[in-house]
Amino acid sequence: MTKTKLSMAVGLAIVAAGANAQSSVTLFGVADLGILSARASGVAGVNSVITDGNTSTRFGLRGTEDLGGGLKAQFWIEGAVSMDTGASGTTSVDNIASSANGLFARRSTLGLQGNFGEVRMGRDYTPTFNNLTTAVHPFGTNGVGNAGQLFYPVAAGGTTPRTHVRASNSIAYLTPNLGGFSAHVMWANAGAAAAAGTDNGRYVGARLAYRAKDFTVSAATGKTEYATGDYTQSNIGATYRMGPARLSYLWGQNKVGVTSTKANMIGVQYQIGKGEVRAAFTTLKAKGVANDATQLAVGYVHSLSKRTALYTAYSNVDNKGVGTRFSVGGGLRPTTPGGNSSGLEFGVRHSF
Amino acid sequence: MTKTKLSMAVGLAIVAAGANAQSSVTLFGVADLGILSARASGVAGVNSVITDGNTSTRFGLRGTEDLGGGLKAQFWIEGAVSMDTGASGTTSVDNIASSANGLFARRSTLGLQGNFGEVRMGRDYTPTFNNLTTAVHPFGTNGVGNAGQLFYPVAAGGTTPRTHVRASNSIAYLTPNLGGFSAHVMWANAGAAAAAGTDNGRYVGARLAYRAKDFTVSAATGKTEYATGDYTQSNIGATYRMGPARLSYLWGQNKVGVTSTKANMIGVQYQIGKGEVRAAFTTLKAKGVANDATQLAVGYVHSLSKRTALYTAYSNVDNKGVGTRFSVGGGLRPTTPGGNSSGLEFGVRHSF
Amino acid sequence: MTKTKLSMAVGLAIVAAGANAQSSVTLFGVADLGILSARASGVAGVNSVITDGNTSTRFGLRGTEDLGGGLKAQFWIEGAVSMDTGASGTTSVDNIASSANGLFARRSTLGLQGNFGEVRMGRDYTPTFNNLTTAVHPFGTNGVGNAGQLFYPVAAGGTTPRTHVRASNSIAYLTPNLGGFSAHVMWANAGAAAAAGTDNGRYVGARLAYRAKDFTVSAATGKTEYATGDYTQSNIGATYRMGPARLSYLWGQNKVGVTSTKANMIGVQYQIGKGEVRAAFTTLKAKGVANDATQLAVGYVHSLSKRTALYTAYSNVDNKGVGTRFSVGGGLRPTTPGGNSSGLEFGVRHSF
Repeated sequence: MTKTKLSMAVGLAIVAAGANAQSSVTLFGVADLGILSARASGVAGVNSVITDGNTSTRFGLRGTEDLGGGLKAQFWIEGAVSMDTGASGTTSVDNIASSANGLFARRSTLGLQGNFGEVRMGRDYTPTFNNLTTAVHPFGTNGVGNAGQLFYPVAAGGTTPRTHVRASNSIAYLTPNLGGFSAHVMWANAGAAAAAGTDNGRYVGARLAYRAKDFTVSAATGKTEYATGDYTQSNIGATYRMGPARLSYLWGQNKVGVTSTKANMIGVQYQIGKGEVRAAFTTLKAKGVANDATQLAVGYVHSLSKRTALYTAYSNVDNKGVGTRFSVGGGLRPTTPGGNSSGLEFGVRHSF
Repeated sequence: MTKTKLSMAVGLAIVAAGANAQSSVTLFGVADLGILSARASGVAGVNSVITDGNTSTRFGLRGTEDLGGGLKAQFWIEGAVSMDTGASGTTSVDNIASSANGLFARRSTLGLQGNFGEVRMGRDYTPTFNNLTTAVHPFGTNGVGNAGQLFYPVAAGGTTPRTHVRASNSIAYLTPNLGGFSAHVMWANAGAAAAAGTDNGRYVGARLAYRAKDFTVSAATGKTEYATGDYTQSNIGATYRMGPARLSYLWGQNKVGVTSTKANMIGVQYQIGKGEVRAAFTTLKAKGVANDATQLAVGYVHSLSKRTALYTAYSNVDNKGVGTRFSVGGGLRPTTPGGNSSGLEFGVRHSF
Repeated sequence: MTKTKLSMAVGLAIVAAGANAQSSVTLFGVADLGILSARASGVAGVNSVITDGNTSTRFGLRGTEDLGGGLKAQFWIEGAVSMDTGASGTTSVDNIASSANGLFARRSTLGLQGNFGEVRMGRDYTPTFNNLTTAVHPFGTNGVGNAGQLFYPVAAGGTTPRTHVRASNSIAYLTPNLGGFSAHVMWANAGAAAAAGTDNGRYVGARLAYRAKDFTVSAATGKTEYATGDYTQSNIGATYRMGPARLSYLWGQNKVGVTSTKANMIGVQYQIGKGEVRAAFTTLKAKGVANDATQLAVGYVHSLSKRTALYTAYSNVDNKGVGTRFSVGGGLRPTTPGGNSSGLEFGVRHSF
């Protein structure tokens, strides 16, 4: 088999002479695989090969075209891959139900950028998601330490929220950096699938952020209208860098119909040579759904290169009530009232 | 994340020294997103982010290998992306039913080309589709002005035609240009999924075209055998260029079982600097299915570069009978007998 | 449309200067399309455009990063395409059931390689599959001569084996070449989808191979635990090269619950200029399922270049009992007790 080899550009921009000068297409991706040993009260443990313990496996294409006069067009198509099975990801075409065939459902956007900022359309991260990522949370939304365990919404009253991470059929405006301040507002609806005359599946949200040399703070809120009960997601995140250490704090609230969950997280990351030690502790208060819970997560990431790292993490989720709703993931949920769930994982993450 | 940057070749062929000289692989695509305000008699309007208003979003790989002696091999795999949701497209594996997982279902072909023309196999456009595209129709089959609204077949008597655009399991022969004349013939069947001994899902069609300096004319017809009633598609298209203007005429007929729809379109496109004004007017006569209807479409496309354009279009479909079958798309169909449907869209199209 | 052209590297490694020296990403694929005339006792014949007659159509990305100190990271994501319909492939996320959306389900692995060999995780070929490929069998597992017809397992007692080709959620160790000897061991389970406390879907297998200048021999065995009855696959393959000829022998056994099938194949391949003549004869003995059968296959492959070939093959499967279980594929199975099945195919295979 003849092979097409693509040059890897580590900081190297390959430029072509087109009608309007500079353009480039970037092919990129991440592969993440590991092993997980998961335990939960009342059920047998599972040892398994798993994916995405450190970073979500993905592949994509993106490119920017300089249109002249400070105007740029940027496209971005990026899809998930279940690296342990080769399966593609899911999407929600109407922001109401989950659907298969989410080929580029991590992000599929087209934007026009200029001094005014960016107007961007398509399927994209909601402004309210950003604070749950590694932008604030030491573990982001991956692996047993996953912010999603306690900061994602709990389905209630017939509403399963779909917009706590991304929204389809969105149009957004992102300001440029204005003296450290930036804002991101988004409107999205159920698309052409929308039932005429209803607001079912419509998302409106905004995020305001401030970034100084060693300090960041950001607040976001968004509301999705559902015929079965509206969903509101709000959060505030802050980080502070002190030499090799980074401290983080995250508050988040999810209201689903008449229920709510509120969580508070304190986190720390510490660089030691090519490694990073990380820890997060989260408490959750539930109202009308699930139960109160706490989560402790500790981990270590060791870089073998800029592109490749080994990682390990341990996390324990302790349910405080009979709901035993929460777990560290890995397919197990405790069945004993007030039960806990724990997981230990080791893995490799490789970017390309 | 380390990034793989691919050089953009605007007319630049990157050539490698292989066993048989020249070969290249091209990665290509289009991203198209916009907003649509759609209205229809008897139902509430919808305002929504939509995709493919100007050109169908896609991504693909294609390549040609020079085999020596004038012989070339060409492969082409191209898939649709719902740019507003990240979802992949659909296909029909047997030319009878629609099916998901149409990863490269816009086109997946392998051909051998030479002085004799080309023999091409796989999933491909049917010869009868060509006249509905921008090769003739000012709006092609995209957006509110979409030729598909009145030139696509209407399901009847248990038959939902699948071959008015593409056919799976096809083998085709395309002549070279013979003094302005060219022909395209195709045979396709239901593939290995075919019920033995039946012709269900079998397509046979042909197109004959003539191209002069400022004038083109083309006629095509194709028949697909269905157990529930055969489907026949026929059309004739002509274009005439006069300086900055292009005039177009399209006649098309779809017979589904014992029913039929016939449509006539006159269109005009006019270049003004970096912009193009376009308009089309279509009348449809229905027999045994749906109802008579007319469609008016006007639009404007403004090129920001060779690769990027802004566009807007308005279209109105007026149903003449109680079927109220036809609309401009966007998820709405009139519910009032004789009702109409209209849509106004704005968007951005970017090729890569 | 502006086109991104990728340079074709025929033995040319494009290297970039990164943090740890050498890295590359390879985009690769195969397109294979042809026509098949299939016949089977008791049913009407089918003539059809088919895919994968010589080699499975695929596309993928793979890359290797040199981490220094002899250590390398390698990722590999590769998916199937039904070249006649554009559809993507299937996977089995739990090694128990088949599932759609197998975007990169031919292989999705991440490995660390060094002097010690390779540790590799993800969805990959099982060690027991290798002997069924063209590594031993003249026709590999493609087309009418396909080793899979008699060497793949037959579902029985509620168990449909899924691991005779690949396993999801696997971790494997591959030794380096040790004086001609090499070994491959793999463990895989049902992943996070596993029912806690059960071994349903768990595969364990190993392969030991020896390679001399003109001679290879390899033995493999693997067991998959299923709640409905375990599945065991074992085989021994040997090849011997004599100038332009290669002789091959394959023994394989599949036990599904209390049933079994055993097959023996003798094969020959003979190079004549740019062509290869190939033939294989297989006998199968069945116990408790299906029926005894024999398969004869003959074929010819003519290379037009290193990347492109024309091929033809004929095969006949003769069922010896009332099960009439076996066929040459192409969607037909005999319905007459003791019936046979035959197929003649012509096609083109192109690698990119």
